[in-house]
Amino acid sequence: MKMLSKLASNDTHGQNSSYFLGWEEYEKNPYNEFSNPNGIIQMGLAENQLCFDLLESWLTKNPDYFSCINNGLSIFRDLALFQDYHGLPQFKKAFVNYMSKLRGDKVILDPTKLVLTAGATSANETLIFCLANPGEAILIPTPYYPGFDRDLKWRTGAEIVPIKCTNANGFRITKSALNEAYNTAKKRNFKVKTILVTNPNNPLGTTLSKDEITLLFNFISSKNIHLISDEIYAGTVFSDTPNSYTSVMEAISEKNWVNNKDIQKRVHIVTSLSKDLGLPGFRVGAIYSNDPLVVSAATKMSSFGLVSAQTQYLLSGLLSDSKFMDQYVGNNRTRLRERQSMLVSGLKRAGITCLESNSGLYCWANMGHLLKSKTFEAEMELWKEIVYEVKLNISPGSACHCDEPGWFRICFANLTEDVLNRAMQRINDYVTTKFHKIPYNGNNLSMWHSCRVLSLPKWVFRLSFDDKTSDER
Amino acid sequence: MKMLSKLASNDTHGQNSSYFLGWEEYEKNPYNEFSNPNGIIQMGLAENQLCFDLLESWLTKNPDYFSCINNGLSIFRDLALFQDYHGLPQFKKAFVNYMSKLRGDKVILDPTKLVLTAGATSANETLIFCLANPGEAILIPTPYYPGFDRDLKWRTGAEIVPIKCTNANGFRITKSALNEAYNTAKKRNFKVKTILVTNPNNPLGTTLSKDEITLLFNFISSKNIHLISDEIYAGTVFSDTPNSYTSVMEAISEKNWVNNKDIQKRVHIVTSLSKDLGLPGFRVGAIYSNDPLVVSAATKMSSFGLVSAQTQYLLSGLLSDSKFMDQYVGNNRTRLRERQSMLVSGLKRAGITCLESNSGLYCWANMGHLLKSKTFEAEMELWKEIVYEVKLNISPGSACHCDEPGWFRICFANLTEDVLNRAMQRINDYVTTKFHKIPYNGNNLSMWHSCRVLSLPKWVFRLSFDDKTSDER
Repeated sequence: MKMLSKLASNDTHGQNSSYFLGWEEYEKNPYNEFSNPNGIIQMGLAENQLCFDLLESWLTKNPDYFSCINNGLSIFRDLALFQDYHGLPQFKKAFVNYMSKLRGDKVILDPTKLVLTAGATSANETLIFCLANPGEAILIPTPYYPGFDRDLKWRTGAEIVPIKCTNANGFRITKSALNEAYNTAKKRNFKVKTILVTNPNNPLGTTLSKDEITLLFNFISSKNIHLISDEIYAGTVFSDTPNSYTSVMEAISEKNWVNNKDIQKRVHIVTSLSKDLGLPGFRVGAIYSNDPLVVSAATKMSSFGLVSAQTQYLLSGLLSDSKFMDQYVGNNRTRLRERQSMLVSGLKRAGITCLESNSGLYCWANMGHLLKSKTFEAEMELWKEIVYEVKLNISPGSACHCDEPGWFRICFANLTEDVLNRAMQRINDYVTTKFHKIPYNGNNLSMWHSCRVLSLPKWVFRLSFDDKTSDER
Repeated sequence: MKMLSKLASNDTHGQNSSYFLGWEEYEKNPYNEFSNPNGIIQMGLAENQLCFDLLESWLTKNPDYFSCINNGLSIFRDLALFQDYHGLPQFKKAFVNYMSKLRGDKVILDPTKLVLTAGATSANETLIFCLANPGEAILIPTPYYPGFDRDLKWRTGAEIVPIKCTNANGFRITKSALNEAYNTAKKRNFKVKTILVTNPNNPLGTTLSKDEITLLFNFISSKNIHLISDEIYAGTVFSDTPNSYTSVMEAISEKNWVNNKDIQKRVHIVTSLSKDLGLPGFRVGAIYSNDPLVVSAATKMSSFGLVSAQTQYLLSGLLSDSKFMDQYVGNNRTRLRERQSMLVSGLKRAGITCLESNSGLYCWANMGHLLKSKTFEAEMELWKEIVYEVKLNISPGSACHCDEPGWFRICFANLTEDVLNRAMQRINDYVTTKFHKIPYNGNNLSMWHSCRVLSLPKWVFRLSFDDKTSDER
């Protein structure tokens, strides 16, 4: 093994986590309505398949963007030769306009501050290479995306220190949690260089409140550190409540911060077209930063993961069509809201409640009451049952570094309605047969009334829980 | 500056080299036959523009690959969602078949040993991340591609130690140069992990001889290190001499090595479609390795630079068309040979000789006799004159870490014949007027006879050279 580097020889890539293992199980036995109706249903993949009909319809009407035609002439050779790591100007312009649209056009973004990368995976790693030396720390609120261990730590040598968030306040970031994480890093002799948040949050499906953003700005200001906001789910905010989403780029343009040059340069966002547009296969991500030094260094690093010019051209056409994009954004929102509602009510029927969410392609479901004990071992045991017996691939909270056992991320936008219904039936059957009880939760009585299984006997605990169990639900 | 990482704050990315600076100058004042006939002609860019007519003709006949159509049905959504870092199976299969074709079908390659990356830039960095820890060394024969400082060292923290090659033996690798480099690394307390060669060589335009490959295999065997062969120019071998190119993957399948499992696992190649197919904008590169651990680690790292599935699909169609690819490879070879010959004879007319080459998109030209002194300062002075006065962007040898001043890399496949002729006229005018002499070199008398400026007075040295000058030409 000494022949290879430590990176290649050890397991620090984090891909042995149950998050990735669940995918492997799914791949061995994938559900198919006709050919494999007893296979595993994939609910571990945050993919948006709800609006392909709209994209396909646009592409049919605009074939030139497929065929590398511009004004009737082929630009194939120009695109084939294009390797300027600054990106196609018309693509970057359309991209920032789209980003503004997702942020309610409350902030004007500048294409010269955008660095294109081969997906958000690359964008996040690049930002860490720019901000942190090996052994320096990134603070991240828990629970967080399992891939961050690979994306932020593996090759950069940076360290992740969790900001511990709990269900006690709906997993919101608090000042005390920030201070605790900062002090933990200090005790471990890590210099803290940045906080990284996901907004909208993955896996929670929630957005940062304005208070949380103010807290974060004040904290990075006092500690002289950076804030990275991974906003790849910005286009999945489905709530119709006004102002339910504030991007950090919008927040720093508000009056309290707009003249604070330090903060302006220390807040960076990561974005991609993989989640809202459902185009992960096209590998389009980006960094947006107000610090010219970060933009310059990240641009040089983008040589390691440039976006195909063929793909840049195709998407420049799509994103520039402002009328179409308005319709797309609206339709996508409506469809996500409906689908999320199906999942939430399906789980409720099985006695499982979700953290209230307004965004994302998944829900954060509390199955603490189904655990044999309030431990992560019990969570893994339950997870294995759900994967191997119920045949649903969902992601256990432990894979997301959650501090409380019993939470699971369940995705809803990569399935048809029929398959989602099938999945809900399976979980309902599992809960009712395995636990010999009807799913019922005293806190959710009002929801329960609307449920067709109301006539079934009351919930009976088969398992013992410690005192805190009820708080978790 | 402490706010950012050392990587972002320092200049170790190497992009301040004159190689990149020349590009910047070109971009400020690019030649155009009509709108800017006195602009800089770009001869610093190893781009292949000679066969786009063939590619365009294929694309016109096969529009489905543009439009994401397969068997009459759109596979747009499958491609948009495709993010398996193992790549599209049909693309990888077609890719290794094409690689075999370029190697005379003398070696059968296995798609499971291929790792796709966003260009060779990413492939090279990924291999170093897999093989070397920070502070460990890579031995590279000089002169070498200026971008390697960025690609191999910048983010990996590895060190480059040059294997010094000189014109004394046509820049061939010798055992003593290998030993010297190895000992230099040891003296600097660097553990040597790999040798990296380019084959065909950039900037020399030559291919490794079988003897050199044997020397390298014996050396890595005795030192227990790896060999990376960057073969991105494999498709540019234009020589019609049989067996003028041997890939290291072919060499390790020969009888002396085929049963040596250690060597099998320690020889890796890097490839791309940027040079022979002229598609740098599409960002397609790859690593090919017989070591499953390297394949596994590199595949995980490929998350940071995946190839757009749209582009994979398009190129799977192109590369699978074996009949077309046979024609393409043959035509490309012929056109490159003709164009190289134009450059070599044009330079000869100006009294400039090139290292004899059989591959590449450039020649390695000796202008030592035009230097004011045999120093790199004089080389930079001459280079600046050529860029700013002659208005040709060529790459000075010092940017390629050449150990002898006076060599320049001059590209020929990114220009039309007319522009190449214009460039040759400029260099001829420069030499004849600036140096008040006709270009003449005693060693090249026979070539000179065919030159139309034969009637001009004999070469007169204006500048003094040291004793070794004549050896350099």
